[in-house]
Amino acid sequence: MSAERQLDPSTSYPVTDRNRVKRLHERASYDRAAVHAILDAALLCHVAYVIDGQPYCTPTLFWREGDRLYWHGSSASRMLRHLKAGMPACLTVSHLDGLVLARSGFNHSANYRAAMCFGTARIIDDAEEKAAAMRAVVDRFYPDRSAGLRPITTQEAKATTIIGMEIEQASAKVRAKGVGDDEADFALPIWAGVIPVKTVLGEVEPCPRLVPGVAAPPEVDLYAPGKTLDQCLLDAQREYEEDLA
Amino acid sequence: MSAERQLDPSTSYPVTDRNRVKRLHERASYDRAAVHAILDAALLCHVAYVIDGQPYCTPTLFWREGDRLYWHGSSASRMLRHLKAGMPACLTVSHLDGLVLARSGFNHSANYRAAMCFGTARIIDDAEEKAAAMRAVVDRFYPDRSAGLRPITTQEAKATTIIGMEIEQASAKVRAKGVGDDEADFALPIWAGVIPVKTVLGEVEPCPRLVPGVAAPPEVDLYAPGKTLDQCLLDAQREYEEDLA
Repeated sequence: MSAERQLDPSTSYPVTDRNRVKRLHERASYDRAAVHAILDAALLCHVAYVIDGQPYCTPTLFWREGDRLYWHGSSASRMLRHLKAGMPACLTVSHLDGLVLARSGFNHSANYRAAMCFGTARIIDDAEEKAAAMRAVVDRFYPDRSAGLRPITTQEAKATTIIGMEIEQASAKVRAKGVGDDEADFALPIWAGVIPVKTVLGEVEPCPRLVPGVAAPPEVDLYAPGKTLDQCLLDAQREYEEDLA
Repeated sequence: MSAERQLDPSTSYPVTDRNRVKRLHERASYDRAAVHAILDAALLCHVAYVIDGQPYCTPTLFWREGDRLYWHGSSASRMLRHLKAGMPACLTVSHLDGLVLARSGFNHSANYRAAMCFGTARIIDDAEEKAAAMRAVVDRFYPDRSAGLRPITTQEAKATTIIGMEIEQASAKVRAKGVGDDEADFALPIWAGVIPVKTVLGEVEPCPRLVPGVAAPPEVDLYAPGKTLDQCLLDAQREYEEDLA
């Protein structure tokens, strides 16, 4: 296998040893649109980074603008103190879509969508990019919301660190099918099937201290009870991108 | 702050610089029961590990037995080839429970439960422990299921690598409350509230090639439509532990 696989750079991320999917590679894709669709349906990611040889896996909220990923944290966090110079990171998003029960233990599986993104995480120092990101962390999830909020104070801006990472390489991996038993096993009198899993929204719980007469705004209606979180986040991302354009 | 905090070792994980929660530490716990409750409500985790200075964040299915975590993969995966000697790893589980919309951007948040576990990941070489783990990967999620399946072949056992990691340190972090606005902001005519998020099961999809008359077994009834995945997994873990005892 060559060290670099040639794919169309306008639609695919480059493939190197770092992001090549080694296991079950028939489920893999390096297509930008495939990676973005998995990222944009999520708000929770896990970021792996290394301090003195020790790996850390930190869950955090994130968002995407083009090929750049953003997440944020307070200046007290462990990771941030090591980010001044930029550090290699791997940001992964996973969606669990189903449990797959087969006729053999070996063929038990899960349906899922996962994206792994590689790059160098850096603190966003540029004042304009940071201010835009502090609006984005609200508006990407709740379109147009930031303009109606109590403005950010200087102290809050100082206490917030935004991290950005250009996606240098990425891969998507998806399983979305039924039971994959060995052909001979289908004849066995053993139950097999798929149990679908979905993440949905419950009934909105308004703050008990709302000023009387304040109604839920459109960005909350986007998160309708029963709707999947995936769909809400994809809808919000589309609105957010339209607002930016 | 001292390098080691003294907690009761019978109920708490030891606290060192590696697992001490630096940010929003009022949300943190080192209690074993708190960590286990978060782990046992999940089947998907993210494992961070390092190869040649490059961090990787890999999603995988896992399970817990006492203070030991297990996950598995094929011998082709990137991580496994580096595991012969044991490697430091961080296994993290996160549950997203709600979106918190506040009256300021700064106080927007999420409700969540997360556990980070640190240890040394090793391939399970011992034949007996490996055989037990290959049953556990089915029975921990679907109690008593493995006994009724087509038995594992020698080839399948060879193609499967089980990884084990003793939890050396761990931390749990939980946010489970309403809007945390600044006191002065509650008087503002801005909508705020919590949008609950839950992961639930859909209607079971039996394999279209089932032998006629084969009914869904009890371990499938455990995953009833509409039930939260959390509750199913906690129920399955309890049954599994009772079966082991």
